[in-house]
Amino acid sequence: MTKTLRVDPDRMLDSFTRLATIGATGDGGVNRPSLSDAHLAARKWLRNEIERSSFEFRTDGAGNHSALLTFQSSNLRTLILGSHLDSVPNGGRFDGALGVVAALEVLKTIRESGISLKVNLEAMDFTDEEGTLVGLLGSAAISGHLTQNDLLAPRGGRENLVEGMQRAGLSDESMLSAARPKESFAGYLELHIEQGKRLERAGINIGIVSAIVGIGSYRLSFLGRADHAGTATMEDRLDASLGAGAFALAARELVMTKFPGGVVNTGKMDFSPGAFNIVPACVDVALEFRSPTQTDFDNMDAALIALAKEQASRFGLELKIEFLGKHSPTPMSDVAQNVFASACDDLGLTHTPLTSGAGHDAQSLADLCPVGMIFVPSVDGASHSPREFTEWDDCVNGANVLLHAALKMATE
Amino acid sequence: MTKTLRVDPDRMLDSFTRLATIGATGDGGVNRPSLSDAHLAARKWLRNEIERSSFEFRTDGAGNHSALLTFQSSNLRTLILGSHLDSVPNGGRFDGALGVVAALEVLKTIRESGISLKVNLEAMDFTDEEGTLVGLLGSAAISGHLTQNDLLAPRGGRENLVEGMQRAGLSDESMLSAARPKESFAGYLELHIEQGKRLERAGINIGIVSAIVGIGSYRLSFLGRADHAGTATMEDRLDASLGAGAFALAARELVMTKFPGGVVNTGKMDFSPGAFNIVPACVDVALEFRSPTQTDFDNMDAALIALAKEQASRFGLELKIEFLGKHSPTPMSDVAQNVFASACDDLGLTHTPLTSGAGHDAQSLADLCPVGMIFVPSVDGASHSPREFTEWDDCVNGANVLLHAALKMATE
Repeated sequence: MTKTLRVDPDRMLDSFTRLATIGATGDGGVNRPSLSDAHLAARKWLRNEIERSSFEFRTDGAGNHSALLTFQSSNLRTLILGSHLDSVPNGGRFDGALGVVAALEVLKTIRESGISLKVNLEAMDFTDEEGTLVGLLGSAAISGHLTQNDLLAPRGGRENLVEGMQRAGLSDESMLSAARPKESFAGYLELHIEQGKRLERAGINIGIVSAIVGIGSYRLSFLGRADHAGTATMEDRLDASLGAGAFALAARELVMTKFPGGVVNTGKMDFSPGAFNIVPACVDVALEFRSPTQTDFDNMDAALIALAKEQASRFGLELKIEFLGKHSPTPMSDVAQNVFASACDDLGLTHTPLTSGAGHDAQSLADLCPVGMIFVPSVDGASHSPREFTEWDDCVNGANVLLHAALKMATE
Repeated sequence: MTKTLRVDPDRMLDSFTRLATIGATGDGGVNRPSLSDAHLAARKWLRNEIERSSFEFRTDGAGNHSALLTFQSSNLRTLILGSHLDSVPNGGRFDGALGVVAALEVLKTIRESGISLKVNLEAMDFTDEEGTLVGLLGSAAISGHLTQNDLLAPRGGRENLVEGMQRAGLSDESMLSAARPKESFAGYLELHIEQGKRLERAGINIGIVSAIVGIGSYRLSFLGRADHAGTATMEDRLDASLGAGAFALAARELVMTKFPGGVVNTGKMDFSPGAFNIVPACVDVALEFRSPTQTDFDNMDAALIALAKEQASRFGLELKIEFLGKHSPTPMSDVAQNVFASACDDLGLTHTPLTSGAGHDAQSLADLCPVGMIFVPSVDGASHSPREFTEWDDCVNGANVLLHAALKMATE
């Protein structure tokens, strides 16, 4: 009987479309950085949507918002379905939002079906997934992994975090009090857009995430000497731009040849003094690298740092290495991958295992309960961009897979 | 009789030392950007010094300050000796200041000697040589080369220029009215520190400038595409950092192998969006290059632009080329070089021809009258830095060469 159950594509589209107007940038995208006014408006909309649908509304000290669906026969454990309503600055309207809207639609569909499950269901919007402030903040808070240090030196700056928390009526104390008991987690399942081109290229409906990549980041400072760019001879210079530029080129080469599953990015370089007529004394390079397997991740880390040292010394430069943090690669649970695959098969949808190159809230919960994610195809792979787009049929496919995977996990 | 004439080293040192306290940064350097309060204080000090010494004080619509020494037999033409009191931000106490103090000391020495010359002498402090605002501003103004456009789009920003002019009681109109008749110029001679290591290394007293390098600058924008640095594969990226980095390396190689008398600098790169987790969509490179000969200057210009196009296309990037301006190479006059060499020989000082890698006010005046410059050794080549230093004996040697070259030019 449950095999024929489907989400309501029009009702879900109506929700999705209304949500996409909040913080809309007029070019198809949205601008809803964590705890900004636009993000808080999106949360208010979600709360209304939950209450209008007569679900129990929950919030916590981390500002996570959710709809709770309980059952007579429930064992008090909760299977969480969710994603996030915040966006990167000038991002797209699918990233995160689709997963929240689909989770709520799944709850509506299950409630209407009259099915009774052994676990509660919760459709969750996690706070600050994107990391404008901290990153994976809401999920780290409920999992108990969040520390005071994370809040004191956040990547978005302490001041921005404090201002955001004040706007949302939150505090360090409330954040740190949001941890839930481990035994309350029955699992976590998330629908997300792929943010890459692999599904589109292969013409496959659903990507079942096998692992979320590990992410490491450093600030590498190549240190030379400021000289007059007219009077110092080329031979006499210690030009920091040469070490930084050579590192960017060599790092790409290294990763493409030695670590084919990984990626590396030199997303920013800051030059000082930074004038046309002064030889650069210092170039700070923002380095980030990712790999889905622990071995490659560790090897890539060591190889990149060795490479930076090599390129610095090649040009007579000093190198200052500032480690900024890392998340280890996170394998998704076999249980979750299996229920997703089985749901796809039931629905006649093609599927393939994929690694996730982006971080997601499932990482925070992976040591507490079975976690899993599916991806639906991103047109042209665009993401974190107003160009972000997924065909609505693909969104609906994803929601139906989420629905059936949830039912399977809740009855297993 | 005049052959034994010498400047007073102690009197000159006293002036130099007092001047160095104005805008002093406490580390041996000074911070006197053009028309800043510290720069205006230095000018006020100079005016007092001139009036205290009973020279006629002159100023003009460009804010140039000078001491005038006229003679009974003078033909009304003026041989200008000078330099500038402004500094780069957090610069050294010798650059510019030495030349002004020495010029005034030369006037004192000649007046005291009772010698009568056929041309007037003027010890000049030019406004804004360093280009915090416009660059070579005062000399461009008196030569008649300054245009309204130079003032409307200055390199330091229009707002800073307007604020500076207001502080100094100047205006666009006054600036443009400061041009002197061409026939009034008898010549221009300047003493300056080398700002490089060539004299120190060779153990030579005086560098006689043969030419001031031409300087060209561009803003080169390497244009790729912003992508998620986790989800876009390495192969799919159009990473602007690669074109910019490869260009910096290749430009250095090109100039060192093909243009040995020239220099090139990539002094700044601006990344956008500029985040750890976004592939750089655009890198703006601040490119500056210099050469002492017109042929090399033109060839280097063309070769660098061709190289930028080549490196952009190598990584699938677009290239936007913004030409920011150039000064052609300026040969110093044979007359000036000869009187400097003859003065050195008279004084028993070793000398060598040198090109100037930095721009100087002599460029503005080179098409109006014979211009020339000498350099004295910079310890460790340091310049535009608080580390800037020249032994006082070398400063005095330079002043004596300036004195005798001026006498030779005034009597020729």
